[in-house]
Amino acid sequence: MKVSKRGEVPPFEVMQIVEEVAHLRAAGRDVISLCVGEPGGGAPAAVNELAAQLHAQNADFGYTPTAGLAETREALAAHYLARYGVQIPARNFVMTTGSSGAFQLAFLAAFDAGDVVALARPGYPAYANILGALGLQVVDLPTGEAERFQPTVQLLEQALAEHGRLDGLVIASPNNPTGTMFSAEELEELCSWCDAHGVRLVSDEIYHGIEFVPERKGRTSWEFSRSSIVVSSFSKYWGMTGWRLGWMIVPDDMLAAVDALASNLALCAPAPAQRAVIAAFEPSSLAEAEQRVAEFAKTRDLVLANYRKLGIEQAAPADGAFYLYGRLSERVLDRFGTAGEYCRQVLEHAQVALTPGGDFDPFEGHLFIRLSFAAGYERVAEALERVEAFLRQTLSGV
Amino acid sequence: MKVSKRGEVPPFEVMQIVEEVAHLRAAGRDVISLCVGEPGGGAPAAVNELAAQLHAQNADFGYTPTAGLAETREALAAHYLARYGVQIPARNFVMTTGSSGAFQLAFLAAFDAGDVVALARPGYPAYANILGALGLQVVDLPTGEAERFQPTVQLLEQALAEHGRLDGLVIASPNNPTGTMFSAEELEELCSWCDAHGVRLVSDEIYHGIEFVPERKGRTSWEFSRSSIVVSSFSKYWGMTGWRLGWMIVPDDMLAAVDALASNLALCAPAPAQRAVIAAFEPSSLAEAEQRVAEFAKTRDLVLANYRKLGIEQAAPADGAFYLYGRLSERVLDRFGTAGEYCRQVLEHAQVALTPGGDFDPFEGHLFIRLSFAAGYERVAEALERVEAFLRQTLSGV
Repeated sequence: MKVSKRGEVPPFEVMQIVEEVAHLRAAGRDVISLCVGEPGGGAPAAVNELAAQLHAQNADFGYTPTAGLAETREALAAHYLARYGVQIPARNFVMTTGSSGAFQLAFLAAFDAGDVVALARPGYPAYANILGALGLQVVDLPTGEAERFQPTVQLLEQALAEHGRLDGLVIASPNNPTGTMFSAEELEELCSWCDAHGVRLVSDEIYHGIEFVPERKGRTSWEFSRSSIVVSSFSKYWGMTGWRLGWMIVPDDMLAAVDALASNLALCAPAPAQRAVIAAFEPSSLAEAEQRVAEFAKTRDLVLANYRKLGIEQAAPADGAFYLYGRLSERVLDRFGTAGEYCRQVLEHAQVALTPGGDFDPFEGHLFIRLSFAAGYERVAEALERVEAFLRQTLSGV
Repeated sequence: MKVSKRGEVPPFEVMQIVEEVAHLRAAGRDVISLCVGEPGGGAPAAVNELAAQLHAQNADFGYTPTAGLAETREALAAHYLARYGVQIPARNFVMTTGSSGAFQLAFLAAFDAGDVVALARPGYPAYANILGALGLQVVDLPTGEAERFQPTVQLLEQALAEHGRLDGLVIASPNNPTGTMFSAEELEELCSWCDAHGVRLVSDEIYHGIEFVPERKGRTSWEFSRSSIVVSSFSKYWGMTGWRLGWMIVPDDMLAAVDALASNLALCAPAPAQRAVIAAFEPSSLAEAEQRVAEFAKTRDLVLANYRKLGIEQAAPADGAFYLYGRLSERVLDRFGTAGEYCRQVLEHAQVALTPGGDFDPFEGHLFIRLSFAAGYERVAEALERVEAFLRQTLSGV
């Protein structure tokens, strides 16, 4: 029987690595995985405590309103005022099933089939895959070291000239896979350009809070454009990936559409999580999150000082998130051919799992690898030594 | 700025009633709502207990595999063997974010934009709304008392002849809003017809277990067609609406597409719920669920014996779920014009909230109302008295 063409999403190159990791581990090998996009450690203690309490009381977790519980949305509004100094009405917050649920709603409510949406390349592959499944046309904005791997007004002008139209732009700061962030001026410039050209901006801010460069502190696009859609989540900063709770900030002109779509597509975001995350804004929870960020910062310093041990020649500026995206040296590429082959051999011989860049960039990705330092300082330190030893042996043998 | 046409989903007529209920209650009025599609009482105690335990231990709820935790899927496979006597491999189960998440994945993986999918009218409005938002063409199968409000092979033959093609069929048994169920023979006949005609069947089985007629016991479409997609959920029988946990049974030929789409669209279903529902299959949990069904049965008997008090002339056979769908009498329709107006006046004067049929059927729905007896015996009994008193007064005054 027929299966849809929409299901023909390109498989992630990293999945082969992930499968091999499971294989090797099942065979008793000590593999260090630097593939994962999730922080360890779990939710703040106060969040788990509140959840435990609610469940112990046999709370009846029925449907919440489509946009989410009023108290959760108000807590988020207070958080934006405290963290960003930006006043946003609680009614513009919509609770979603992770940022995944938010992207779907954002893309459906903002765009029709055939609309043209621009994305930076390299970038998180799910953007293009979701947009494609919904019948949208994706336009790549090819970025590199010169643009700090982020869209610029110049790239947008070029794309508009080339395609004749542009309906949307998706940005991410901090970015996955590169970790780069906009300065306030860069973000403001993009917001203004989008507003002036009737281009709906979708701002992925899910890595906010995991930031290492004070002068590039994360700013929300709602500071500069109230026509933009913000997507964020409790997954990364608060370490709650599996809980599947995120949110959007929705412009006034889209509230009705988002509500109508969400009431058909989702009904509501998970209710136990919506109630428990009220405790995520307590001082103890924020302190735990900041403690995790401090650990990331320490590991990042280690990686920045030592990425050459991995055969990386040039790395993107890792302003935030927990990724290092780097271009392999000529010597390494001469030896292995592609980042994919390099990753396979590093896994086989050094038992370190890295992500080849092809998933993020079909054109240049074979020259790059992504390393996640969410695995923690000790493991990352050992991984660097292992890969260095493997490369020394392999490259000297050439 | 532009908002998509996909966001122009028709608003639910019932939302006006729901808003008025909130209004009246805020003003201190004792409103009985028979609008709700959710059972009260919450999850089985053992499920909440396990959840409380996991949270108290600060369990790290990271992403699960895209298709869900192996132990949850195995528990479901065991449940199907115990309940339906049907052996289904655990690998065909995919955990989803409620049945909502399952419908999206099912529709995206099975159909491309422009494909033609048939639905019974009256029916759950979200089917058509999601299909429409994804660019599919919906074909109504007009059903009534003669067909027990369910699709028949004859209606499918007609639709196929009229439209020249048919790519999918969505069925629900028990049905919302009518509560009617297929017999095993009827379900088998539909499954065979769909298989023979290359039509992908999507079988909504979310009300399974809430059943009142032994000879129409809920059967899964996977007993008859392993090309069909089953959608189900912990929301109704187990009373876990807000937890947002459902599942699909996915045919072998669609597993790769569903996994690829889910890994981009959802990542995974909520992890705390996936772990806690392992306890939903314990004898104590099933006993609690059956206890709730027994209460529904009692209330259903009351409603079947007394629906004429509401001005209903003829009711659909309420085989399962917790709904009664009935056609208003000529006399009532003469007085109020439409079910919508009837519902507004009943809410205003008798403080009883009922759902007008227009949300389920844009053609004939203005003649029907849906009553949910999930509110419980006492409240439903009082509602019947209130509406009877109001109608006696109003109709005698004509």
